[in-house]
Amino acid sequence: MMMINSGVTAAKGFQAAGIYAGIKKKRKDMALVYSQVPAKGAGTFTTNMVKAAPVKWDIQVTKESPFVQAVVLNSGIANACTGMEGDINNERMAKAVAKALNIPTEAVYTASTGIIGKQLPITTIEEGVLTLVKSLKDGNEAGKLAAEAIMTTDTYAKEAAIRFMIGDKKITIGGMAKGSGMIHPNMATMLGVLTTDLAISKELLQEALSENVKHTFNMVSVDRDTSTNDSLLILANGLAGNEEITEKNEDYETFCKALNMVTTDLAKQMAADGEGATKLLEVKVIGAKTWEDAANLSKSIISSNLVKTAVFGNDANWGRILCAMGYSGVVFDPDQVDLYIESEIGNLKLVEDGMATDYSEEVATKILSSNQVTAIADIKAGTATATAWGCDLTYDYVKINADYRS
Amino acid sequence: MMMINSGVTAAKGFQAAGIYAGIKKKRKDMALVYSQVPAKGAGTFTTNMVKAAPVKWDIQVTKESPFVQAVVLNSGIANACTGMEGDINNERMAKAVAKALNIPTEAVYTASTGIIGKQLPITTIEEGVLTLVKSLKDGNEAGKLAAEAIMTTDTYAKEAAIRFMIGDKKITIGGMAKGSGMIHPNMATMLGVLTTDLAISKELLQEALSENVKHTFNMVSVDRDTSTNDSLLILANGLAGNEEITEKNEDYETFCKALNMVTTDLAKQMAADGEGATKLLEVKVIGAKTWEDAANLSKSIISSNLVKTAVFGNDANWGRILCAMGYSGVVFDPDQVDLYIESEIGNLKLVEDGMATDYSEEVATKILSSNQVTAIADIKAGTATATAWGCDLTYDYVKINADYRS
Repeated sequence: MMMINSGVTAAKGFQAAGIYAGIKKKRKDMALVYSQVPAKGAGTFTTNMVKAAPVKWDIQVTKESPFVQAVVLNSGIANACTGMEGDINNERMAKAVAKALNIPTEAVYTASTGIIGKQLPITTIEEGVLTLVKSLKDGNEAGKLAAEAIMTTDTYAKEAAIRFMIGDKKITIGGMAKGSGMIHPNMATMLGVLTTDLAISKELLQEALSENVKHTFNMVSVDRDTSTNDSLLILANGLAGNEEITEKNEDYETFCKALNMVTTDLAKQMAADGEGATKLLEVKVIGAKTWEDAANLSKSIISSNLVKTAVFGNDANWGRILCAMGYSGVVFDPDQVDLYIESEIGNLKLVEDGMATDYSEEVATKILSSNQVTAIADIKAGTATATAWGCDLTYDYVKINADYRS
Repeated sequence: MMMINSGVTAAKGFQAAGIYAGIKKKRKDMALVYSQVPAKGAGTFTTNMVKAAPVKWDIQVTKESPFVQAVVLNSGIANACTGMEGDINNERMAKAVAKALNIPTEAVYTASTGIIGKQLPITTIEEGVLTLVKSLKDGNEAGKLAAEAIMTTDTYAKEAAIRFMIGDKKITIGGMAKGSGMIHPNMATMLGVLTTDLAISKELLQEALSENVKHTFNMVSVDRDTSTNDSLLILANGLAGNEEITEKNEDYETFCKALNMVTTDLAKQMAADGEGATKLLEVKVIGAKTWEDAANLSKSIISSNLVKTAVFGNDANWGRILCAMGYSGVVFDPDQVDLYIESEIGNLKLVEDGMATDYSEEVATKILSSNQVTAIADIKAGTATATAWGCDLTYDYVKINADYRS
């Protein structure tokens, strides 16, 4: 297995485009991902009661369409809280793609991200679709353009890809994502598109994706707000030529492992690029009775504003970590907890059996000053572990969000 | 019923003191509240798994002591995550008070707030207790000194008091609180001491307090972090001379109503003085099926970082409110929601049936620029309502918490 420097166009038969259509003021705002042959489609979506029009559409496509072949995305406007007009506009966006590519409307996934409550400028979008289809290309550059076109407050495009073998067939998974604000467990204005040339049944593709997000995108928190638009989509077009995976055999496990590497990479990129973030914070909880306990504890820590501001200030305020564990809802013995921090600068045990060690604050601050910091909590109750990713809470987070719409 | 300008010394037979003992660098750091006669005691405490030494002590006192007569408090150090030494120090603090006042140790409540994981400077505290006891006084000034001595990052002392009649007896309830950071539903580093001269059974005093916090302190959120030290204590010494309340009669209802006015006042003061806050945000959810639904929705809105930053920026970003409602876990119809904002400047309907009205952004910004803003969400599913209080999320919140310990 080898990570490669590519994105949604890495796998055989996938093309992409990213353009400026005129929804945003200046930056690219529409993207298209296209499979030259019909592909199996699967998706996971926001758990928010308030679901944007494209989310409702994609849930139906995932349920009912035998195959999908394209994903059209726009940034700038979320098409959420837009009523029936929003649904109609969303369908028009899908229809425009279907017509230009000569595929069924039901084979088109849609995704939108941006401001809630505004209607899409639908004629601009329809014109944009024509340009997108004309711009479709193979290769890394096209994938990059698409990844850039879905950014909102992201500061860089997020791509990842991996290559591995199943039997004698070379399989590729590629992907792009956007994140930044509103990122929280249970998915957040995170859009992600994954493409693979693997041959796999639709049922197993969905199961692999659903299981995958629990350990990757749902373990990322930037600000605990779960958005109306979160969608992670995957298209598998089978062009790698492997024997179709139809049961949970060794090949399936290999695919899941590779998928996990791509999505973990994208998830960490999202966390590190959280709005206003200066560093990636990784939290590992080890020694838990169950994975659920470890996951809930690590998410509680990563979501605490007080932990996040302390990390921003390079302050080893471990009491806030214990405190966040304490209100996680997980039962554990505070007097058993060991806490460590580590970064490329070094590592340090801050707490042993629930009480401070005589660590050096100076060394702790040095370790925390890295742009990638890991906190490890050992609760000594079992062998389960989980990892969550987040970022620090900074002045810039406040600045970006106090003034997002203007 | 009339709110009066006083605090913990408002009710008959209560004295207080607040001094600088030497725990903090400069500001007052110890307080004492004393009832000249034995009083019934009740309390509600943090739900955090990690409980500070004084919290464990107070829970036991509440359960086992037939009466209480004093509350000793310190700020600067929380005496949390301090192991057995912390428990011993806490007991020494209580013992010092008991000895100086010649009352049983079990009649002394303790409370600490400040940094987690540091041991109390116990000899400094024991000396402080002697000074405190010598400084005990009747009257508003003494109450104010106590309220000041429990502040941490609070910017002003929080006091409230009310006077009302039960039969021909004049009853008084007074109180003080500290809040600021780590404030969240289920109590946060919030300390509160309430005093009353009412005669009431211990059981009903506890029940009234437990029911009360659900609607007051537990409806306040500053940053969703629930602390290790939260405690709300009440002492009722019976000196008003009313017939002891031993059942849920009209007198009990009158007391609950008065208690609610005092605690709501303190809760709002706490919310408005949230770390770095520039304004008080009040969220009312109306038209809910149950109080629980309304409470969960309003707490979800008040806790959203994205809502809080938008309010800081005077931005009527109502999409974030709907979004926060959507992930509250409450089932409702987003297409039925009406949203309003109001302040002393005016009021405005932003959303009708889940979609934006054609309101003026300029007017909305003006309304939001007040230092006390209310958002109202009508979900049109029933008649239940709930109110939550919080504040905006600002640069100063980040500043205060990135650098709390230094």
